[in-house]
Amino acid sequence: MATAAGVTRTFLGPLERSVSVAAGRTAVACGEVRLTYAELDERVRRLIGALRAMGLSRGDRVGVIGRNCHRYLELYLAVPAGGFVLVPLNARHAEPELRYALADSGTRVLFGDPEHAALAACVERFVALGAESDALLADAAPEPWHPAAEDDLAGLFYTGGTTGAAKGVMLTHGNLVANALAFMTCWPFTPATRWLVVAPMFHAGGTIGVLAIVWAGGQHVILPGFDASAALDAVAREAVTTIFAVPTMLDALVAEQLRRPRDISSVTHLSHGASPIADEVLHRTRKAFPGVSMLHIYGTTETSPIITLLPEEQELLETPRARSCGQPAIGVQLQVVDLARRPLVAGEVGEVRVRGANVTGGYWRKPEQTREALSDGWYLTGDLGYLDEAGHLFLVDRAKDMIITGGENVYSTEVEDALHRHPAVGEAAVFGLPDVRWGEAVHAVVVPALEVGEDELIAHCRTLVAGYKVPKAIHLRAEPLPKSAAGKVLKRELRETYAG
Amino acid sequence: MATAAGVTRTFLGPLERSVSVAAGRTAVACGEVRLTYAELDERVRRLIGALRAMGLSRGDRVGVIGRNCHRYLELYLAVPAGGFVLVPLNARHAEPELRYALADSGTRVLFGDPEHAALAACVERFVALGAESDALLADAAPEPWHPAAEDDLAGLFYTGGTTGAAKGVMLTHGNLVANALAFMTCWPFTPATRWLVVAPMFHAGGTIGVLAIVWAGGQHVILPGFDASAALDAVAREAVTTIFAVPTMLDALVAEQLRRPRDISSVTHLSHGASPIADEVLHRTRKAFPGVSMLHIYGTTETSPIITLLPEEQELLETPRARSCGQPAIGVQLQVVDLARRPLVAGEVGEVRVRGANVTGGYWRKPEQTREALSDGWYLTGDLGYLDEAGHLFLVDRAKDMIITGGENVYSTEVEDALHRHPAVGEAAVFGLPDVRWGEAVHAVVVPALEVGEDELIAHCRTLVAGYKVPKAIHLRAEPLPKSAAGKVLKRELRETYAG
Repeated sequence: MATAAGVTRTFLGPLERSVSVAAGRTAVACGEVRLTYAELDERVRRLIGALRAMGLSRGDRVGVIGRNCHRYLELYLAVPAGGFVLVPLNARHAEPELRYALADSGTRVLFGDPEHAALAACVERFVALGAESDALLADAAPEPWHPAAEDDLAGLFYTGGTTGAAKGVMLTHGNLVANALAFMTCWPFTPATRWLVVAPMFHAGGTIGVLAIVWAGGQHVILPGFDASAALDAVAREAVTTIFAVPTMLDALVAEQLRRPRDISSVTHLSHGASPIADEVLHRTRKAFPGVSMLHIYGTTETSPIITLLPEEQELLETPRARSCGQPAIGVQLQVVDLARRPLVAGEVGEVRVRGANVTGGYWRKPEQTREALSDGWYLTGDLGYLDEAGHLFLVDRAKDMIITGGENVYSTEVEDALHRHPAVGEAAVFGLPDVRWGEAVHAVVVPALEVGEDELIAHCRTLVAGYKVPKAIHLRAEPLPKSAAGKVLKRELRETYAG
Repeated sequence: MATAAGVTRTFLGPLERSVSVAAGRTAVACGEVRLTYAELDERVRRLIGALRAMGLSRGDRVGVIGRNCHRYLELYLAVPAGGFVLVPLNARHAEPELRYALADSGTRVLFGDPEHAALAACVERFVALGAESDALLADAAPEPWHPAAEDDLAGLFYTGGTTGAAKGVMLTHGNLVANALAFMTCWPFTPATRWLVVAPMFHAGGTIGVLAIVWAGGQHVILPGFDASAALDAVAREAVTTIFAVPTMLDALVAEQLRRPRDISSVTHLSHGASPIADEVLHRTRKAFPGVSMLHIYGTTETSPIITLLPEEQELLETPRARSCGQPAIGVQLQVVDLARRPLVAGEVGEVRVRGANVTGGYWRKPEQTREALSDGWYLTGDLGYLDEAGHLFLVDRAKDMIITGGENVYSTEVEDALHRHPAVGEAAVFGLPDVRWGEAVHAVVVPALEVGEDELIAHCRTLVAGYKVPKAIHLRAEPLPKSAAGKVLKRELRETYAG
């Protein structure tokens, strides 16, 4: 069985199918560059040839750091297909973090945008993406794929930069293929799919569609970085059908489209994920992209990444399910459990755990953290939530973001939602600060969109949530909230800033 | 990895998801009976309890023979979920064939419609479907699923009755789940899916959608047997969205709908497969079901069954691709090879072989036939065809149906297509008969729809195909062509009949 399934449960499955059914179709449009699947395959095989010529062998790590680009896509496909392990690095991380990831992973060769050349000191060889990497390909002989197996490691995806030392999440060929299948069972991926890559490709969200698109023989539309105006121009120019964006990017796209409408009639499917989204953004999205099928995706790097899906979200915005992140994806098993890991009944808040072919085997060379996060194949997400009677998951907070004040649990998203219902609130984040009387006190920081005072916002919250949940203090600020590259608000930074 | 994936790559994946996300939704409508997923789950668990109470243990074979019914669906799910192996028997087979399959498989318990009670002598216990089986469930305690693994056997599917001794195709949990995923990546399966079971459930075509429907929390609409009028009434009454039919049934549905139109506006998706289909039937289908998305499925029992898919067929009817059976399904690897098993280039006719998680591990206790059909995970279908440049598969014939006449190869489907273009031709089949001069001579048998003579049909063929392909004789007959339960014309019988 394993032999029979093996090929199709690896990167080779999508690659082989696309080159046999879609050789002449456009695989990727990136600036002036357009590559057919036959051309992409040629470049992938030359890259494999180049890596082998460098003396790399099966399982060796190959890093990449840089902006979104067709070359990034080529590395994403070629490194695993060649039998190596991809290490995508977060281009916004500080140099010590990058050095840590390179050392921890034992990366031998690093492909990077020229401004990262200083990292050459950390690896055997640094190849600048662009002219240098293209010359490397031109000189290399195309080589066949490595006969990969489902359990072969495809990549190490560093995560956790905001809390403690980063960990390399080990994802196999089988993990990432399982994610592609889960995605394809929910959303149409066809030769007519033209997918706008908006999120950074070093994040799970940026490459969430790659294998599904290649498998279907669809097309990538890649922009070097996120700019709402350029992104909408690309949508109109390339007749993009499908978009995935993190909420902050979606918000910017929507604002730009409402301000200066483009022809976005080609867009049929629009998804978002990676962090909670305000109702108001969803309503504006439906207004800016009328008639589009909206999909909420909840996931984690450890789950390759899809866990739950909420399709046709645009039809649910006036219902309580709008606050859900959907039901378990096909092939993903999900439970909400108590501290003893017993499944809870509908309505009870506990920790979300996940099992399935998409779940990581663990963290690279971190047996202790692996044991903490994984047992019996179940991955503990660290997210708190509950299920309704129809298995819709409602997240209430990150486990560690829950505030315990006067013995009561306060889930910060609930308070954030209350704040967002005030028309003057632009951005809002709620967190706990140490407090003599309450243990932790509920604090909020707000970036106003219109002029507003702290008292008015507190009075507003009082009309919506229980007294103990109302912030003891609301800090107003002009500058945007600090965010991770994935668009998550960095609450740790806020706690440090406002702890004084 | 295997542990993590295991559950979701077995029958337990769809069962667990449906009961947690769709417990209150209708799982099956069958005559007066309607069961929610919670009720279906209860009956499935009671059936498992009953089988265990009979002393059956893991891997024991449980047979079923009878008309389509919710009880058939329950057995289809419960037997594998309980850790046993399902043996579906072809209700139209003669008793010696049935006895052979029961003995060969070592079936211990047989569930069957009362008219099959004579088979009780072949098994330890015969349970009549209906009152007796319902009483068995009422007395049984609901029991949990067996912790299945991907490679556990789920069923033995007897095939090949028309050529030599029947073989039990071994399909695992993983095989059938892989098929469900392949289907779901091509067609929408959602809670709103209402699937009309038209083909007999003892055939791969009759259960082709079961796991996908359960996984999505959709609904089965089951009729006891095929009757075009009753089927269309059910479509209108139950607001059926999705249909799979074999060509002969599709033809009857279309004729009935054109004769006496029902409200079929709920139908959005219509698929057909299991044997070649005449262009004319496809055109009439598009006329009878306007606006419906049509899907051609090519498959075999050994591949669980999907191999290739041709979606949006209704848009292709005026193009050469209408004669294709589509491109490899997601997760299915396909090659056309020569006698030395070397892949051929586009346009060259060879044998179709298939690899993937959906491919059988072999035939039950038939190591020799297994070795003939399977090597390196590749399954040799015995079908002849070629690929075009975009990987569309065109079947030309069953390997064994090809006629070699005067040293020239004649593919019977080509001649049948020529015959079907004559307005007077109702049914047509082309086959070879031994001939002193030509080795084999091309013969045809035609069931006329209008009055027509042999000479006129021969003259008609002469205008369409090369001289050596024109039938040497055309036998006209009033009675329908003999067909297998799957709707395949039994050419062996025709050869015997007309050999004199």
